Amino acid sequence: MEIYLDNSATTKVSMRAAEKMNEIFLNTYGNPSSLHSMGLEAEHELKNAGKVIAASIGATENEIIFTSGGTEANNLAVSGAAHARKKRGNKIVTTMIEHSSVYETCRALSDEGFEVVFLKPDEQGHISQNDLLEAIDENTILVSMMYVNNEVGSILPVKLVQRIIKKKKAPALFHCDAVQAYGKLPIKVSAIGCDLMTISAHKVHGPKGCGALYIKKGTHIKPLFYGGEQGRKLRPGTEPLPLICGFAEAVSEISELSAREKYVRDLRSQTLRGLLDIDGVVLNSPEDALPYILNVSAVGIRSETMLHFLEKKNIYVSSGSACAKGKKSHVLTAMGLNDKRADSALRISFSHDSTPEEADVLINAVKEGVQTLVKSV
Amino acid sequence: MEIYLDNSATTKVSMRAAEKMNEIFLNTYGNPSSLHSMGLEAEHELKNAGKVIAASIGATENEIIFTSGGTEANNLAVSGAAHARKKRGNKIVTTMIEHSSVYETCRALSDEGFEVVFLKPDEQGHISQNDLLEAIDENTILVSMMYVNNEVGSILPVKLVQRIIKKKKAPALFHCDAVQAYGKLPIKVSAIGCDLMTISAHKVHGPKGCGALYIKKGTHIKPLFYGGEQGRKLRPGTEPLPLICGFAEAVSEISELSAREKYVRDLRSQTLRGLLDIDGVVLNSPEDALPYILNVSAVGIRSETMLHFLEKKNIYVSSGSACAKGKKSHVLTAMGLNDKRADSALRISFSHDSTPEEADVLINAVKEGVQTLVKSV
Repeated sequence: MEIYLDNSATTKVSMRAAEKMNEIFLNTYGNPSSLHSMGLEAEHELKNAGKVIAASIGATENEIIFTSGGTEANNLAVSGAAHARKKRGNKIVTTMIEHSSVYETCRALSDEGFEVVFLKPDEQGHISQNDLLEAIDENTILVSMMYVNNEVGSILPVKLVQRIIKKKKAPALFHCDAVQAYGKLPIKVSAIGCDLMTISAHKVHGPKGCGALYIKKGTHIKPLFYGGEQGRKLRPGTEPLPLICGFAEAVSEISELSAREKYVRDLRSQTLRGLLDIDGVVLNSPEDALPYILNVSAVGIRSETMLHFLEKKNIYVSSGSACAKGKKSHVLTAMGLNDKRADSALRISFSHDSTPEEADVLINAVKEGVQTLVKSV
Repeated sequence: MEIYLDNSATTKVSMRAAEKMNEIFLNTYGNPSSLHSMGLEAEHELKNAGKVIAASIGATENEIIFTSGGTEANNLAVSGAAHARKKRGNKIVTTMIEHSSVYETCRALSDEGFEVVFLKPDEQGHISQNDLLEAIDENTILVSMMYVNNEVGSILPVKLVQRIIKKKKAPALFHCDAVQAYGKLPIKVSAIGCDLMTISAHKVHGPKGCGALYIKKGTHIKPLFYGGEQGRKLRPGTEPLPLICGFAEAVSEISELSAREKYVRDLRSQTLRGLLDIDGVVLNSPEDALPYILNVSAVGIRSETMLHFLEKKNIYVSSGSACAKGKKSHVLTAMGLNDKRADSALRISFSHDSTPEEADVLINAVKEGVQTLVKSV
């Protein structure tokens, strides 16, 4: 039996979500845009799923656009907002620790001529309120900030952004990439004050290939691509109804966030205690991180070496973001970690169904790894 | 039991594809980009699926990029090629009867400053070789032409395009939208001579939410969006492995195209004979159309009226492209059909599993409709 502790990369789809998708694939196969009753039935399911997902973040169904995942939703938000507002200013404020789908999009916008400010985190992966205050100004048309960092779990000051935008009289939209926070922290778009928010299905035991962008009523952004009338013309293409319904099913299974959070917090404490007892292991995540993500370094042992040692014991963790596929982490580098520590990083990411027994097996395996593996960093 | 004759809008997923997806969703849930063995296993499945799909069009695995569907693939091809080649010329040649995902992208490129020539079809939905010869010149950087039109089934002269590009010494890439031809006509990219080709899973009994773009080795295009290292950096985002494997499974079930084509051709003849016997019914598709798509008008009876009459008998056809959701068809308009005929259009689209009995039920139902429905166009 595998011990899967790479839930920030992707999660196992829930049984109920899988069943729902199978049912829709085989029975409700009409095109939601078809005018006949099979199309209407599909459209009805689409709207219901949209309602479930909208409700989960305190939004309404017509504020949700489905995408192929978090990457597309982040691009649609950032690129779409920047291009829609370019007559009102030229500045974009974001951070150095965003997911690559925000980070690289901002770099491309910088190449296009936008002024992009990438705020630097401290050694804990925190972004300071002062830096935000300084960066956001009258020329700022977009602030894009993630809620929870995907590599170290640091929680960013998203709830301050809208207040600062108002204070500075910035003509800015606020986009929040909530992919790693969603299903783990209670989220209400009104409390966060964002105009745009990205969520993804496969991080919450829903299917890969499906995400959503919340677009606050009245907010205008440009589409990424063109075609039919779907997705309120902002996101054309036949809707992948089975995936969307699987997403909604997985979301409807998210319950009692506070109980889950307490459970995972205990799991994290247990894991961290055990790991820090091992010679050479240090913590990279901040103490106040989201407990689902725990980043440590077994200093001197290359991440990949430890990762392969662990996988032989059927334990699966990661070296950083899966999307970077082993490249040096831009997040740990931005946090100022030295190479030795960054190259030894391990990201352990829990699900609510991870267990204390699994944590113990992991701790013992890392201990054995540290004792037997050759240091090469 | 429904009689589903709207297969050009979308198809029912095959049982084997559904089973494959369910299996991958529950068992091979690793992120293909994760470095551990669960990631490698997923990546292995990804490559195998890519090989199956590549082989089906005579390409190699590393020439295939997976997208969220035909719309995204068409946008990536058209927008990506135009932007990659803009230093070499300014002209794009396409047709007035492309799918909206090519048509609207070309309109957006026209707004950006590209010169776009939309070739007009004749009354049969054919594009003339002479028009092509005239339009393609030294300034042409992209030709985008569909293989089979999605509303009337006309077959376009795609095999001439590359020869004309060469003859005119045009610095042009050739993109072929083969969504409606794929799985129905034998397709080899080398025989078509295209640099880019779009195919979609849900038109061939694979899942919604998955398509592919063939990009000939050595061809450079710009990405639509940014992020991680997936899709050779041209298409970032966690790959929807279950969908891709379901797509490959559906493709592996496509067999004996010529036998299927003969079967559907007979079905089309039977249907057409029966329908043309009805007073007021005329054919909109050309005689030499792909037999899977049959477009007729019961002149005077609004498409939607007939469509709803038929659906009460559990027969499902469409008024045109599902993506247009009932808007006036730009294809029939371009073909020069008068409003009365265009507003009465019915698209009947077969699958290889449609039956002669179903065709007879359809014919009788249309006959009853023509006799009882009030003419309102």
